[in-house]
Amino acid sequence: MIHNLTLADVLAEHARSRPQVTAVVDGDVRLTYPALDERVTALAAALAGRGVAAGERVLWLGQNAHAVLELLLACSRLGAIFCPANWRQSADELRFVLDDLTPRVVVWEHSDTVAALDRGEAHWVLAGDDYEEFLGSARADGSVSPETFPEVVDTAPVLALYTAAFDGRPNAALLSSAALVAHSTALLVVRQMEPGFTFLNNGPLFHVGTMMFCLATLQIGGTGVFTPSFDAEEVCRLVDAEKVTQAFLFGPMIDAVVAANAGGKYDLSSLRFVAHSAAWDEMITVDDSPWCRSKMGGYGQTEVGGMLTFLGLAPGAAGFAGRPSPLAQVRILGPDGVEVATGEVGEICARGKSLFSGYFARPALNAVKMAYGWHHTGDLGRREPDGSITFIGPKLRMIKSGAENIYPAEVERALKAHPAVADAAVIGVPDERWHQAVKAIVVLKDGAEASEASEASEADLIEHVRTSLASYKKPREVAFAEAIPKKGYTPDYDALDAAHGGGNYPGEITG
Amino acid sequence: MIHNLTLADVLAEHARSRPQVTAVVDGDVRLTYPALDERVTALAAALAGRGVAAGERVLWLGQNAHAVLELLLACSRLGAIFCPANWRQSADELRFVLDDLTPRVVVWEHSDTVAALDRGEAHWVLAGDDYEEFLGSARADGSVSPETFPEVVDTAPVLALYTAAFDGRPNAALLSSAALVAHSTALLVVRQMEPGFTFLNNGPLFHVGTMMFCLATLQIGGTGVFTPSFDAEEVCRLVDAEKVTQAFLFGPMIDAVVAANAGGKYDLSSLRFVAHSAAWDEMITVDDSPWCRSKMGGYGQTEVGGMLTFLGLAPGAAGFAGRPSPLAQVRILGPDGVEVATGEVGEICARGKSLFSGYFARPALNAVKMAYGWHHTGDLGRREPDGSITFIGPKLRMIKSGAENIYPAEVERALKAHPAVADAAVIGVPDERWHQAVKAIVVLKDGAEASEASEASEADLIEHVRTSLASYKKPREVAFAEAIPKKGYTPDYDALDAAHGGGNYPGEITG
Repeated sequence: MIHNLTLADVLAEHARSRPQVTAVVDGDVRLTYPALDERVTALAAALAGRGVAAGERVLWLGQNAHAVLELLLACSRLGAIFCPANWRQSADELRFVLDDLTPRVVVWEHSDTVAALDRGEAHWVLAGDDYEEFLGSARADGSVSPETFPEVVDTAPVLALYTAAFDGRPNAALLSSAALVAHSTALLVVRQMEPGFTFLNNGPLFHVGTMMFCLATLQIGGTGVFTPSFDAEEVCRLVDAEKVTQAFLFGPMIDAVVAANAGGKYDLSSLRFVAHSAAWDEMITVDDSPWCRSKMGGYGQTEVGGMLTFLGLAPGAAGFAGRPSPLAQVRILGPDGVEVATGEVGEICARGKSLFSGYFARPALNAVKMAYGWHHTGDLGRREPDGSITFIGPKLRMIKSGAENIYPAEVERALKAHPAVADAAVIGVPDERWHQAVKAIVVLKDGAEASEASEASEADLIEHVRTSLASYKKPREVAFAEAIPKKGYTPDYDALDAAHGGGNYPGEITG
Repeated sequence: MIHNLTLADVLAEHARSRPQVTAVVDGDVRLTYPALDERVTALAAALAGRGVAAGERVLWLGQNAHAVLELLLACSRLGAIFCPANWRQSADELRFVLDDLTPRVVVWEHSDTVAALDRGEAHWVLAGDDYEEFLGSARADGSVSPETFPEVVDTAPVLALYTAAFDGRPNAALLSSAALVAHSTALLVVRQMEPGFTFLNNGPLFHVGTMMFCLATLQIGGTGVFTPSFDAEEVCRLVDAEKVTQAFLFGPMIDAVVAANAGGKYDLSSLRFVAHSAAWDEMITVDDSPWCRSKMGGYGQTEVGGMLTFLGLAPGAAGFAGRPSPLAQVRILGPDGVEVATGEVGEICARGKSLFSGYFARPALNAVKMAYGWHHTGDLGRREPDGSITFIGPKLRMIKSGAENIYPAEVERALKAHPAVADAAVIGVPDERWHQAVKAIVVLKDGAEASEASEASEADLIEHVRTSLASYKKPREVAFAEAIPKKGYTPDYDALDAAHGGGNYPGEITG
């Protein structure tokens, strides 16, 4: 166990090394590291009293709060698994999570939807006073001490985050302490986070984008400021009051912050962030270093612990996803598990210290995702000649024409680069000679005309793709449409197949 | 194996991600990452042909060279263990290393001492042309490819570094890829190393102080410049030619570099380093940030992979060893394995990702060092009220007076703080009532007189210790001497015991 380092171990070390540092700020609550450590120990004892042993689950249904971090750290101390879930889901979606995860304890903030759920066999604790009472319940008997808990290996899953569906239902990606500590350390390297780092948790903690900064802040012994959700005025107030270094802000949120602080009421100069607009740049400290501390560029997903590649590691490189984390390896693999050549598109696959441990209770899916000993991200990418990586788009499905594999996302990207194209989707249609052929469905921009005389005719678009990609990837035919049907952000391929004669996909049983 | 990341994996990723980056510069040799990767694969195949399987040892006897890094990486690819040893040792010392490590292959640079050694059953390869021929020997048959090697777990030892003796003979500390990768990442965090980092390996690579920077440079995909040993003029030439960011330089070496570049012949401005003298500060880029990129403060040893604590993590703190690495835990333990109170002296004990895997072929010593599940560094330290750590000195031995443990190094430190004391050593002498009592042997500074009237009398010195430490730690008697006999940098306690009546140490069998 000499190499073991759980999240709870990180906390226990900070309690010794940083006794005066504020670990957590949340409304009127201010906790030093020793105070947080004591509360986490008490909470772990209370959870243990409700049957939360190693491998059992604890669920949070609510907005951001320091209780989220406390519950995660208490689960780490017990070897249990903590899941902060999106509390704004529908009753059906929440029921699915409860049935899927079968938590021993649920801590919730009041909402009518959550209040109406069947509580099953779990112990439910309302956030606020009830949570405080629950946390304190095991203090009284004097048996609460870190030594009362069994040793926990840091490869045991500790955090579950629900991610997008592959098979029609969400899956909980399991991350171990070892993976989270490794990911945090990589973030510390690339963002050059220092002691004194103060992060405002204003994005949702059930999403890896905010959680990863929350945990990197813990790793470096910084201060985590919690606010229930994004509120521009409150963000200004907290940045000023707590001298926040970074927050989870981008485009429209930054505009809202600028508007809220138009009169210059709050001092936001502690924020080190990318330039955005003249007004913003004047309010904050603009960081234009190559490894800009707040630059978000790169490629990531929950299953890699957050970020897999960083733009900051590849200043000036061709691939806008940058280069891999110093703790990861990336391979662009074909469907046969063999690395494709530089410049070719394949699936982004990964190994590394920050990777997840699979999905909770999904053995069949896990086996598919870990094929050939590499985590398959489900996303397409390309290695550029300078070694950097370009993210192409979600893999979703593959078209097989002759012996060639064609990914719709790559052809769609090429089509959308045409100046007359507003949107595009690509399907495979049965072909007697080649098994499948590529068919494009294209939405033209207003004013662009799909006539043979214009520059956006079927022939023009096919020629456009032929000059950007290998010839076998070009559409054989183009259908023009008013809109592309969507499922979330991606084309609804089933609907497109039905409307445009798609079929004969590899693996499909054909008559 | 999805979480596995060996040193050879790091190299393989850089070969893809940084195909144009120079990995290694050594004299006329310049290798990009793909070129280094190809050579390492060829070298691994050649080593495998000489019986270097998983767990077998390869020994380097020579000065710094890029071959040191190549051999380490080739051993990583095979799961073997590489040891760069001090080639300037005596014939007896070198024979001990050969007998202890029983290497399959020895690569050596010519020295008369080494040339005269019995070669035993190992395959010996002379550095230079013979090494190049050996490296190329497995290329011809076309079977050399990374896929021909078995998968290696990153917790397997890959580097052996001989360290100070605990039991009268040197011991080879074994470090795994996982430990070295973790240590490198911690260094990247604390030193804020960036892509483009160029390190001059001018200190000995058989010592962890240089090796740890060599490996952190690899981890971030930087450039390692190799020079056989420290030569001030050559350091200047290389810094200028290769735009070196950092080197292994301190006090007298810096003075020598300044003298060598007195005429301003070389441009050293690429060096980012601490201020040292007016002339130096003008030649280089002085880095005065709290986390100064070249600040060496902290506490470390080979057994923790290099550094355990960093001053950069504790700006302005009381303890000059700073705070623990973000990937480590530190406990100050008493001899019973129980943590001592803040402000009390105990043994610095550690857990963490960068720790060694024990000493090669020393099971009994390993069990002692890992007592109570914590690595015992053999050094004394103290946790300050602000959580930072003060390094006191080597533990070496303990005096037991009544129920109290007294470490000589702590009392010696207090004595040496007296303005009249030039040197001091402390032993335990038999005591009927307390089992042992503390006796100090003190060397006074020139001009200070040990008379009762002066301020450096026996009574004065005892009183001085009593006011700095707990009363039970004060000497009961003081003997004045001309010099303290030494073994290396530490007092020769056996000689002192013999001369001054020491005895009754805990664990000693008494009549």
